[in-house]
Amino acid sequence: MSSPLTYKLIHQDKKTGARLGEITTPHGTFQTPMFMPVGTQASVKTLAPEELKEMGAGVILANTYHLWQRPGPEIVKEAGGLHKFMNWDQAILTDSGGFQVFSLAQMRDIKEEGVTFKSHISGAKMFLSPEKAIGIENDLGPDIMMSLDECPPYFSDFEYLQKSVARTSRWAERGLKAHRNPDTQALFGIVQGGPHEELRRQSAQDLVSLDFPGYSIGGLSVGESKEEMNRMLEFTTPLLPQNKPRYLMGVGSPDALIDGVIRGIDMFDCVLPTRIARNGTVMTSHGRLVVKNAKYAHDFTPMDPECDCYACRNYTRAYIRHLIKADETFGIRLTSYHNVYFLLNLMKKVRAAIMNDELLEFRADFFEKYGYNDSSRDF
Amino acid sequence: MSSPLTYKLIHQDKKTGARLGEITTPHGTFQTPMFMPVGTQASVKTLAPEELKEMGAGVILANTYHLWQRPGPEIVKEAGGLHKFMNWDQAILTDSGGFQVFSLAQMRDIKEEGVTFKSHISGAKMFLSPEKAIGIENDLGPDIMMSLDECPPYFSDFEYLQKSVARTSRWAERGLKAHRNPDTQALFGIVQGGPHEELRRQSAQDLVSLDFPGYSIGGLSVGESKEEMNRMLEFTTPLLPQNKPRYLMGVGSPDALIDGVIRGIDMFDCVLPTRIARNGTVMTSHGRLVVKNAKYAHDFTPMDPECDCYACRNYTRAYIRHLIKADETFGIRLTSYHNVYFLLNLMKKVRAAIMNDELLEFRADFFEKYGYNDSSRDF
Ligand SMILES: [Zn+2]
Ligand SMILES: [Zn+2]
Repeated sequence: MSSPLTYKLIHQDKKTGARLGEITTPHGTFQTPMFMPVGTQASVKTLAPEELKEMGAGVILANTYHLWQRPGPEIVKEAGGLHKFMNWDQAILTDSGGFQVFSLAQMRDIKEEGVTFKSHISGAKMFLSPEKAIGIENDLGPDIMMSLDECPPYFSDFEYLQKSVARTSRWAERGLKAHRNPDTQALFGIVQGGPHEELRRQSAQDLVSLDFPGYSIGGLSVGESKEEMNRMLEFTTPLLPQNKPRYLMGVGSPDALIDGVIRGIDMFDCVLPTRIARNGTVMTSHGRLVVKNAKYAHDFTPMDPECDCYACRNYTRAYIRHLIKADETFGIRLTSYHNVYFLLNLMKKVRAAIMNDELLEFRADFFEKYGYNDSSRDF
Repeated sequence: MSSPLTYKLIHQDKKTGARLGEITTPHGTFQTPMFMPVGTQASVKTLAPEELKEMGAGVILANTYHLWQRPGPEIVKEAGGLHKFMNWDQAILTDSGGFQVFSLAQMRDIKEEGVTFKSHISGAKMFLSPEKAIGIENDLGPDIMMSLDECPPYFSDFEYLQKSVARTSRWAERGLKAHRNPDTQALFGIVQGGPHEELRRQSAQDLVSLDFPGYSIGGLSVGESKEEMNRMLEFTTPLLPQNKPRYLMGVGSPDALIDGVIRGIDMFDCVLPTRIARNGTVMTSHGRLVVKNAKYAHDFTPMDPECDCYACRNYTRAYIRHLIKADETFGIRLTSYHNVYFLLNLMKKVRAAIMNDELLEFRADFFEKYGYNDSSRDF
């Protein structure tokens, strides 16, 4: 069996061990650490594929749960898969749908066989099993797909977490067996275990023994503190094989990205940049800025004067504020463009810092400038 | 005084007299007949200036009333004018604000001095006079601006229309006197007169005697039949000088564009293409198509298979339907792109038909294919 995904380690930062690498998929190669913009419903909100490409996004994410509900995997399959359906010829990763079932859907009933729940759109009763999740992902046709996992609340009862982790391992194995396209789609296992080292270790061991082409770390960034998340990452990543990629799910704030990279993470995704963009908030070299605020009405400087993105090269805070206040879609196109670019560009700088063995210095400078060291600021 | 605008007549269709021409402004030259996309609030809804440029839009429209309300002309002036504010370096035309005052605003009180009304946004009492309209347009800085006119309902009382036309002529003269930048901004007069030939003639005579660099025809496409509109155009355009452009305000349906050109019109504007795009409706070579309808769920052909626009080259009806059903902004970006392109491209074909003296043949073919000759279709 030939592998649909290869990970090449290029360099490790001498002080932290952070990894500069390269992932090759059936739809191209991208460097890591990488931030993956989220195209929940087969579209990264407000943006065109060409725009994502010009920003340097070599991989994007789509959500299995949402595409299952709408338009349905059969339509995407009939279109020739997600790449053709959405006109994106580079890599795509899909999650398993589990996270949304556990966060969006109502009336969940979790059994060994799978989860019964009510659709948040139609209200219809639906059933998701490891085999069903893999079947949908096979129909969607992404380059990288996720095993179905359970995502219990972080500080759940230990007994419950223990049972849940064991079940997630069994689900991972069932998914692996059900996978129809192991030569063209790389299936990742997802390490769970909440705040407990012994459960994280057990989960990692179970999954590594199944020899997945990559591993995700799930159940983090769900409300626990950043210190707590970093502690669990420090414990968990060393349990994963050096020659495979590691993906930290649902993380997109600049500090968490940098701190994740320092702890050995290669891939990240988050709706943060596009979600805050829709509220008129942008990330800048000097921290967050609410561009729709009245104080920018006469401000004819770019969102981020240090940014060289399309939006910052051509438009002012005053214009973007006006567009957002006036409900003009082009305003959130510009804030979304900038925010996604900001994170992709941040990761580019992080990769350069790893190459030069100065990631810690980069972190110190970035945190100082962004305002993370200023306790009076709220992020 | 040097003129900010020149009109060059290139060729007239031998059978209809339709004009192929060229208008040169301080921000570039565009060919006529031309459809001008509407950027009400300094943005053509969902689209980027670069996209409008690649479609061949050499001139766009912005609405004085809306920009007066928000962000306010002082901010646009401080930005260096509309071109800089919105990053559009080609021609811009603004209306006078009159149409919106007469259609959107509440509690109008029309006097010789001007109109008092309540803002549809803030509810504040505001006052618009010919001098005020010109002052705002001078601050906004478009290449082409409109005189303040009154737009009474088409079938108003004759006595009222007669008084209104006379007042609109006096307002046009007052605007001309108040105009601060006659060397860089071309002010047009607007012919009114409802359905009455003698009033249209009087209005045209009054305005032509003031020697405006261009003339608009207002008070049409406000609910009267297309036959009635064509009848008034046939009567009115011959009253206007051959060496100046003629602009028919608020017209954007394909049949009305072609029939307006045949009656000597050079410029058109309408929100139609972007407005119907937001409802998931597109114009195609074979008539209107409601792409969000269920019957296109599995249709993997372009919106218009004969269209070579960005949207039709890259996306299917099934994908666009999915995006619109899922409230994804990129869906209405694609329908808006296509619809604006469709009208710009239609005018390009109309110009070629004039050059070849075959506009009537073009009209017959287009109407047949679009479905205008099929009485069972509703447009
Ligand atoms: Zn930027
Ligand atoms: Zn098209």
